[in-house]
Amino acid sequence: MKYVDLKYRPGRDEFIAEYFLEPNKLSFERVCEHLAGESSIGTWTEVKTMKAKILKLRPNVFSINKKERIVKIAYPPELFEPGNVPQLMSSIGGNIFGMKAIRNLRLLDIHLPEKYVRSFKGPKFGIPGVREKLRIRNRPLLGTIVKPKLGLNESEHAKSAYESWTGGIDIVKDDENLTDMSFNHFEKRVEETLKMRDKAEKKTGEGKFYMPNVTGETHEMLRRANFVKKHGGEYVMADIVSIGWSGLQTLRNYNDHFSLIIHAHRAGHGALTKNPKHGISMVVIGKMARLIGVDQIHVGTAKVGKMGDFETPEVEDEVESRFISEGGHLLEQFWFDVKPVFAVASGGLHPGSIPRLLKKMGNNIIIQAGGGIHGHPKGSESGAKAMRQSLEAVMKGIPLKDYAKNRKELSDAINKWGVK
Amino acid sequence: MKYVDLKYRPGRDEFIAEYFLEPNKLSFERVCEHLAGESSIGTWTEVKTMKAKILKLRPNVFSINKKERIVKIAYPPELFEPGNVPQLMSSIGGNIFGMKAIRNLRLLDIHLPEKYVRSFKGPKFGIPGVREKLRIRNRPLLGTIVKPKLGLNESEHAKSAYESWTGGIDIVKDDENLTDMSFNHFEKRVEETLKMRDKAEKKTGEGKFYMPNVTGETHEMLRRANFVKKHGGEYVMADIVSIGWSGLQTLRNYNDHFSLIIHAHRAGHGALTKNPKHGISMVVIGKMARLIGVDQIHVGTAKVGKMGDFETPEVEDEVESRFISEGGHLLEQFWFDVKPVFAVASGGLHPGSIPRLLKKMGNNIIIQAGGGIHGHPKGSESGAKAMRQSLEAVMKGIPLKDYAKNRKELSDAINKWGVK
Repeated sequence: MKYVDLKYRPGRDEFIAEYFLEPNKLSFERVCEHLAGESSIGTWTEVKTMKAKILKLRPNVFSINKKERIVKIAYPPELFEPGNVPQLMSSIGGNIFGMKAIRNLRLLDIHLPEKYVRSFKGPKFGIPGVREKLRIRNRPLLGTIVKPKLGLNESEHAKSAYESWTGGIDIVKDDENLTDMSFNHFEKRVEETLKMRDKAEKKTGEGKFYMPNVTGETHEMLRRANFVKKHGGEYVMADIVSIGWSGLQTLRNYNDHFSLIIHAHRAGHGALTKNPKHGISMVVIGKMARLIGVDQIHVGTAKVGKMGDFETPEVEDEVESRFISEGGHLLEQFWFDVKPVFAVASGGLHPGSIPRLLKKMGNNIIIQAGGGIHGHPKGSESGAKAMRQSLEAVMKGIPLKDYAKNRKELSDAINKWGVK
Repeated sequence: MKYVDLKYRPGRDEFIAEYFLEPNKLSFERVCEHLAGESSIGTWTEVKTMKAKILKLRPNVFSINKKERIVKIAYPPELFEPGNVPQLMSSIGGNIFGMKAIRNLRLLDIHLPEKYVRSFKGPKFGIPGVREKLRIRNRPLLGTIVKPKLGLNESEHAKSAYESWTGGIDIVKDDENLTDMSFNHFEKRVEETLKMRDKAEKKTGEGKFYMPNVTGETHEMLRRANFVKKHGGEYVMADIVSIGWSGLQTLRNYNDHFSLIIHAHRAGHGALTKNPKHGISMVVIGKMARLIGVDQIHVGTAKVGKMGDFETPEVEDEVESRFISEGGHLLEQFWFDVKPVFAVASGGLHPGSIPRLLKKMGNNIIIQAGGGIHGHPKGSESGAKAMRQSLEAVMKGIPLKDYAKNRKELSDAINKWGVK
């Protein structure tokens, strides 16, 4: 069986996968043959059950760049079940990672054809829907994560949320490992925190929002989302890598009923995305999340915060744009009617990070700070104020240090963490 | 905050995580501090909301081996929600993989305390239940995967299954990327294949079994499992890495109702497990799968087949034993009443591989061959016969080449693929 055909030109209805590939012993071309076969219709030996009609389902390795170790494969659409992300991943992100013949393999991007894209729901709200619900049109949204990550009880959690809201934060989020704990139960936390949200809205006259973490077994997630809805919440958050694609698809399907904004945390993605030679790119993870239909997703901080880079600009482009043109290691992608997903910058941010962050990532993002708010020398409310002041300064085009002159909260924050 | 305490001795109720760690710039000890904090109660800066009572939830880095770059951390049980694998992974396998301060990180093993182990269902059948259902007590089970991976229609698929069964195979499995396809629909495939199973049982007088692949969105998986049950199936298979932990937990929960044997394919695990310095070990994936309750799981072929090694002996030990003692990079683990999971050897096997495979992996396994059966020069039925003959030879202690003398199918297979 021959899969390599460098003259082949993929049709508009085909899937394309781009890989970084380092062979183990065998030649680059031979390993490309194995890669194309194992991810589609082939196996390690010729089989007697192979039929001529099946050859029409054969993928084509149409581009090989041996120097950069990049290979592109076009797959006929029949190989993939519409509306089934796990099946796609089992094909082009499955057995191939385990083959002896391959030393390193990284799935860099997937081009998805129109029919497949349209077989998913995509985000229910996306950027325009979230902005409409929050009634914030022209500035980045401000979020915080209650800290410490774990240990506060329900009322301490609600109090910290309240102080963040009254200080000027729009959205308060649970941390990624806070679910239903012996010291802080999900239902009680949601009830108490949403009560404080109402109080904060009254005090500030602004819309305030809370993202409870529903991460868990699928039906428990749905039960928790239903609880949030019934108690007047507008948001849920889920750790999409930890729960996996099947559970995320189910959560999104039910969201036609719940109508909650789905915030996607990406805890654990680094196990797949960190090594530039092996694993799955964050672009692919972001793409699958958009396809399935999260409304917001963590994309990193473009090297401003505590986390690594992880292709922040590319991921932001992929989840926000209607059309991505081929270039770098992004494949062409039309998103048709699929709404853009809000990019969330999170991880080690503080008031002094905002100018550089917005310069790199633009205004159409959600800025989240946890330690950078609750670590403020005067506490959470002052930290929230400092964050809002920093954002105001950037929106008005005033240098942070000038704006801090008459603003104690901002100047305290800058004294602690600097501007960087 | 200090997390490193080399004099600390973990209590019996604590979780222990063992990591391979390569820091980025900072000292090993300082990165251990970050690792312990980010996976539990800490963040990148001291926060004002920290309270004395929360310090009791602090993990302890109690073992550091700088030369081998191994670190062990003990976590208080309160940090983890019972019955929630995604929450555990978001904690000790979450943000830490993405931190700037870390160059490489591999989660090698997790020790789980009794209360947590007992909060999961574990396998419904496991090795004893599967053997009882299949009425095969003393030999390895023989399985095949219909090939080509994709392209056969429903009746061609059923015919190939029939030939494998009549040739002597016990279990026929869908391939990992075959779900509900335009050329081969799930429901029609299951109906036709189960009909041929009945016919094969009648012809051979043996029990014959079919594993349809239900991989997909959670509720679609449950719907398909229900269809299999209603049509007299005993098995389902799912690609556990592609579907993710939430969906797998849900499938297992519903299996109290379905009472199907759950076969776990691990397509895609190599993205996490292949790099010895980064990601998540196959031991951890196997451990979570046993905890949740799959009945069978792919563990590799101990270097005999087409796939890499991936800790086959350690994984087999972890999923089968009642007690694992600390050693190598396995942590101590009691499994209490959790049933042992059948280890499945699959990937590039053929009749000539069986002697070496059983020598390495023992008799308490499921041997699967796809290409090694359907690639037989005389077709699938002869391939199945050759496989069964090879197994008979090993069980009787007769050298394969001697046993092949009067057996055309086995000798044809050996002529094509050799004994290796």
